[in-house]
This record gives sequence, C-alpha cells and structure tokens, in this order.
Amino acid sequence: MRTITVADLADLSVGATLLGTGGGGDPYIGSLMAEAAIGRYGPITLLDVDELPDQGLVIPAAMMGAPTVMVEKIPNGGEVLTAVSNLERTLNQKAVAIMTIEAGGINSMIPLAVAAQMGLPVIDGDSMGRAFPELQMTSFHVHGIRATPMALVDEKGNHLIIEAIDNAWTERLARTATVAVGGAAIIALYPMTTKEAKRAMVRGTMSKAIELGRLIRDGHLSVDEKAIQLARDYGGIELFSGKVADVERHSGDGFARGTLSCTGLGPYAASVLRVEFQNENLMALRDGSVVATVPDLICVMDRETLMPITTEALTYGHRVTVYAFPCDPVWRTSKGIKTVGPRYFGYQVDHTPLHRG
Amino acid sequence: MRTITVADLADLSVGATLLGTGGGGDPYIGSLMAEAAIGRYGPITLLDVDELPDQGLVIPAAMMGAPTVMVEKIPNGGEVLTAVSNLERTLNQKAVAIMTIEAGGINSMIPLAVAAQMGLPVIDGDSMGRAFPELQMTSFHVHGIRATPMALVDEKGNHLIIEAIDNAWTERLARTATVAVGGAAIIALYPMTTKEAKRAMVRGTMSKAIELGRLIRDGHLSVDEKAIQLARDYGGIELFSGKVADVERHSGDGFARGTLSCTGLGPYAASVLRVEFQNENLMALRDGSVVATVPDLICVMDRETLMPITTEALTYGHRVTVYAFPCDPVWRTSKGIKTVGPRYFGYQVDHTPLHRG
Repeated sequence: MRTITVADLADLSVGATLLGTGGGGDPYIGSLMAEAAIGRYGPITLLDVDELPDQGLVIPAAMMGAPTVMVEKIPNGGEVLTAVSNLERTLNQKAVAIMTIEAGGINSMIPLAVAAQMGLPVIDGDSMGRAFPELQMTSFHVHGIRATPMALVDEKGNHLIIEAIDNAWTERLARTATVAVGGAAIIALYPMTTKEAKRAMVRGTMSKAIELGRLIRDGHLSVDEKAIQLARDYGGIELFSGKVADVERHSGDGFARGTLSCTGLGPYAASVLRVEFQNENLMALRDGSVVATVPDLICVMDRETLMPITTEALTYGHRVTVYAFPCDPVWRTSKGIKTVGPRYFGYQVDHTPLHRG
Repeated sequence: MRTITVADLADLSVGATLLGTGGGGDPYIGSLMAEAAIGRYGPITLLDVDELPDQGLVIPAAMMGAPTVMVEKIPNGGEVLTAVSNLERTLNQKAVAIMTIEAGGINSMIPLAVAAQMGLPVIDGDSMGRAFPELQMTSFHVHGIRATPMALVDEKGNHLIIEAIDNAWTERLARTATVAVGGAAIIALYPMTTKEAKRAMVRGTMSKAIELGRLIRDGHLSVDEKAIQLARDYGGIELFSGKVADVERHSGDGFARGTLSCTGLGPYAASVLRVEFQNENLMALRDGSVVATVPDLICVMDRETLMPITTEALTYGHRVTVYAFPCDPVWRTSKGIKTVGPRYFGYQVDHTPLHRG
C-alpha cells in the first residue's frame, strides 16, 4: 500500500503517456482533474490487489473515444462518479475499489479522481500494461471476464447501460454510442470481484508508470543515462531516431487513425520510419521492414529529453526517438495475440516478439 | 372494453398497414406472432384509457428500425417481454397496461403479443394515429413526456437501457444502437402513468385500425362503395390512380428511404405522381405540385381492392390508388408541425392541411 499525492501526478502523467504508445490521450489535463480531487478529498490509496479480501466489487472506470476528441472533452469528476454509480445501481452493490483499465494515457488519471471522490482505494495495475484502442483488448477478456453490465455517460447527461452477449458486442455497442454522443464518453465496465481481479489483471502498472515518469523527468540524468536504464530495467529497444516528415490523421469512426512518417538522423540518416496507429501505435516499419508490432509497445519520444509524445502532439520537424518495449506476457498467449496481434488490426504479418537487433 | 380475438387480427393487419402509410413494416408476420400468443394465453383485453385509474405504469412496446429489415427480423414474443421486463426492472415497478406507440404497421401487433403473455390489457390508441419514422414523433413528446428510461434489446441477446437528456437524443442513441445490432431492435419506452396517457395519447387508433381493415376486406362492398365510406367516415381524399413506374430505395442509416413514381390511369392519364418516403410516405407531388405532406397520411392502395400496400411490397407495374387522410389534430399544433412537418424532413414547403380539390 502506498498513497498517490499531487507530487506523484507529474511523474504518472509522463509514464502514462509513454505507456499510452501515442494514444490514450495526453494525461496532463486528466492530471489536473486528479489534482483537484486530491486537493479536495486527500491523497489516494494505491493498493496491491492481494491486500484486498477475495470478495467485494471492483469497478474499472475510463474514458472512451478518439484521443483527439477525449482531450477536448475532459470530464469533470461528476461524470465519472455518475458512470460508476450507475453501474453500482445496476448491480445493486457498492464497489470496494476502483481500477484502471488502461494505465496508458488519460485513463491512468480518470480512475484516480473518482476514487478520491468516493473515498475508495485504487488497485495498482490495469488490464493492458499499456493502452489499446478497443474495449475487449484487456487481460480481463483474455481471462474470460465479461465487460458488461457497462455504464456509459456523456458530458451532456445522456446515460446508457449496456448488457451485451460478448465483449466484441460490448465494444461495438459502446463505440457507436460514443460516436453518437460526439466521439468521447465516460465508461465504467468489467465489474468483477477482487478474486477475479487477482487472477486477471496486469499488476503494478500504476507504480511502473510513476517510476518511468520519474526516470524520464530526472534532471540529474543525461539522455544516455536514461536510455541505459530504459533498456536495462524495462527492456526498451531503440528503433529509430529522426525527425517527423508527416502525420496523416483521420478520426471519423470513433478512433484516431493514421500514419506517422519520419526521416532518419545520426545512425539512421539513410533510413525512414513509418508508424501506423489506431489511437495507439500499432506497427513500426523501418525502410519497409516491420521492426515492431502490437502488442509490444511502440513509443515516440522527444530526441533531446526522452519525453513521450502523443500522436496528437506530433508535428512536422519534431526531433524524435522511437522505442519499443516488450508487452505483458498475457499478450503473448494465443488468445492474447488473437485479441491484439497485428492481424486483428488488419496487418498481414505475424507478431514477432521484440529482440535486440 | 372489448377483446381482440384471432378473428380481429386480419382486419387489424389491413387497417394498420393503411395507417402505416407505406412504412411501419407489413403487420402480417406480426399478426402471426399475436395469433400464437392469443392461442396460448387467450384473447387480449382492449381498454379505453379512461377505464384505468390514474395511477399505474403504462409501457409502450415496439419494434424499431428500417421496415425492410424489421420484416426479416420478426421477434419471438420473448424479446418483447425482455424489453418490457428490463424497463420494469429499471423503474422498479410493474406495468398495469401495455400501449401501442404506433398503430400503423407491425407495431400495431408487437404490443398485443407481449400483453397476452403478461396477462395485461392493451390501451386502445397510440401516440401517432399512424406510423412515423422517429422516436420523438409522438403525441407523448408533444405533451412533454420523456421517452426514457428506454429498454432496447436485439434478437441475439444484447440489452441496452438508455436515459437521455431529451427525446431527440433518445432517437439518436437508440437509432445508432439499432443500426449497430443489424438494423432492427425491440424497444420499450415512454413509460408513463395512466394519467399521463389520458392526457397525451391519440385515442381509439387500435379499434379504428380494426374498423378500417374490416371495411376494406368487406367482400360485399364494391370498390366505389368502400371509397365512399373512406371519404365520408375517415376524411379520405383520392390523390391519384395509376401504375408504379419506379421505386428507388436505400436503407443504410437505419431508415428505408426512397421515392415512388407512378404514371396515371383513367382521369389521371396525363399525370405523374411522386411519393417521397423515409420508412413512411412523407410527401406526394402530382405533376410537380405538392398535394399532400406529413403529418397527413399518404396511403398507397391496390387499385382493384383498396388493400393498402407497404413501400417494400410495391413493384413495377402495380396498379395503385393513392389516398390522403387527415392526421390527428395533435399534429396541427405548432409543436406537432415542428416535430413531424415537412420541414423537419428537409422539404422546403409548409404543411397545408388537406382539402378536397
């Protein structure tokens, strides 16, 4: 058990942006929301799931939609509370803890605000170990846990309760509703017992995000020293270094889709890198060859500081370094690869786990 | 109070097709569902709303979607029961009566089956006096009654509860969900007290549909005799007589949209008629001049029998007579015209109430 204070939020924000792999929305604005909640209700307890008894309801809360829209529709805490409360009412049971569905991006922050408001602890971990674009892309799903009943609310006051036959239908129904309400919505879903959470969650992702952020923000370390730690402690592999030549984006169907193109600098001077994304970075091709794919993490960072950069923030000429990090082992299972492997996203390539080349 | 027996269903089916004004789905298949329910549970009680005490919950049930799809996704009774039960559970209250939201088309039948199953009476009337394509196009809406909470279910077992900020949002959210589940869904909505129903409903539409069907099906009357009664008792006005030259249809957005073109016969030999529809017939133009618009009823009937024809059933060469009937007075109010007048549907014309020309 530890607490999350306002001082942790800046680190968490940076770490969560890294784990957001380009998507998930910039957590900075979300961190303001968490900061306000902590200021009002006090520090948030971050628990290891083993500290909780087996029984008791856990509710993950998140924001859903295209990050492009999410960052413009930041909820006030009230909407997240409404989503969690609507789900509690549907289940006729009170939650004992709040959980993070994705520790990448803004969704690392959304649960903190509501946990502070409700006086509940947050469980350290998530269901991805990163960010993914669709609702069934969770370790919960891999472990056979249903996403519904699910509550969805928008900032205008529209509420939905969805009860779907499977998690793919949950994604479909929630996605169309999210598009209908303007491209972003607040959701509470995958209600489960703490016993199920113990079995199915990716553990420790919240504290990992805080540590990663602290490392990157450390003013006493050089970029090279940070790079060494990223490689040694987190399995990071440098894929490319260069500058942004183009970012093509479109977001009509509830996702931010597009392609990032970079031309090389330094040792990569003769090379080009292309990164395909659907909210999150999905595949990196260097000079036409696949060098990393989902579910491994593909992270674009500032070349001088290693500060992670979301897809929205990328602009022409930006000097960047692109890293890959290995995904959680849950994603290397056959159901994991089926759920989030490159073929699911329409790429005709198999996932090859990262190796230092 | 009267009962609806299996013998009434054939009349109701024809009358409801007429009031369906081309849309609403052919009630014939729905009548089989009602027939099965009556066979199993006994005749259905049809009540005047004044026979009920002011308190008590009334639930309208219906099918939503493009009629093109609706007639291919006829529910088993179980789905309608699920929708009504989900709404009862959300409200934590049992219904005392079932209501028809539109007496035109298949939605005249859907409530009968569930009423028989639940042992509840059906209130004689609806919220349109006809069929309309969108959820907010009801006398309930004109009287300020909210459509939500609303239950939506599909034939696969997906369930939604929608709580929207207004009835336009209800339509939007339910429509996108209906499209997502394949173009048709079962809904229970506009839950209200019997007191509200007394104030806001269009009365007597179910028995009117049965009477209209009985008249049209009467083998002892000639077409001319039927036409005289349609004019005298129901305000019917003949707009055209001719044959179908073309029907252009598309249904991508959850509606069946298109245009019917007819060339004249007899006194209309030199004329052409065009009917624009969005599920229901919306506007009739004879030789380019508007001769009838929503909210008045535009009904296409077989020229030899006056049997009404749904848009789906229209084929090239079909000999037809086109009638208009005056709408319920609720639609001539300013909120009524705003809700269902021609301008709502994108036509740059004002509604002119029917007159014999």
